[in-house]
Amino acid sequence: MTTHHAVDAYLATWNARGEQRTKLIAEHWASDATYTDPLAEVAGHDALDALIGGVHEQFPGCVFTPVGAVDAHHRQLRFQWGLGPDGAEPLAVGFDVLILDEDGRIKDVRGFLDKVPGA
Amino acid sequence: MTTHHAVDAYLATWNARGEQRTKLIAEHWASDATYTDPLAEVAGHDALDALIGGVHEQFPGCVFTPVGAVDAHHRQLRFQWGLGPDGAEPLAVGFDVLILDEDGRIKDVRGFLDKVPGA
Repeated sequence: MTTHHAVDAYLATWNARGEQRTKLIAEHWASDATYTDPLAEVAGHDALDALIGGVHEQFPGCVFTPVGAVDAHHRQLRFQWGLGPDGAEPLAVGFDVLILDEDGRIKDVRGFLDKVPGA
Repeated sequence: MTTHHAVDAYLATWNARGEQRTKLIAEHWASDATYTDPLAEVAGHDALDALIGGVHEQFPGCVFTPVGAVDAHHRQLRFQWGLGPDGAEPLAVGFDVLILDEDGRIKDVRGFLDKVPGA
């Protein structure tokens, strides 16, 4: 998995529902993966799945899209993403650093928010 | 140690020499701390000390200074720093995410470069 594929897999996971999301998590995330952003701190596949499901309930009809370029070295990547209605200006913009394990699976996410809804 | 103190301690470590640097590393960095930027991937106090010493040799007379604000939550911090002659425009600007352990010591650094000398 190249670094750009990792970001694609990451955003695909955030956009997926039901069995498709479970499959993407199993395929692209380390079993003990950790995820920390300003609003959540979780570890493991089930907690990730539940976290993403909760965000879907909070922002129905919204999608995650890549914003700008990916900067990567040594199995660590930084990039921005947007969250908003499909095809529209993102309501929120975030910034993540992903750390990949030796098999290219996501093992750690360090997230920050650059733009929040209503701000 | 508050998050801003962590950044102060981090930059102080990068600016220190000899015994002062050894002391700062022992005080503010976890014993198994890891550090990864585009040019280096090291772990542990001795390797950190050697890495910083090498950068001092490469950029004699230069100092690390904070750039902009620190954004922090859940023991993780993001911020920019500059490297250049004291009081002058930085030659290089970098961006780091620091992860602190439960005692507030630096346990992981994920570094990227925003501006490199000559670019």
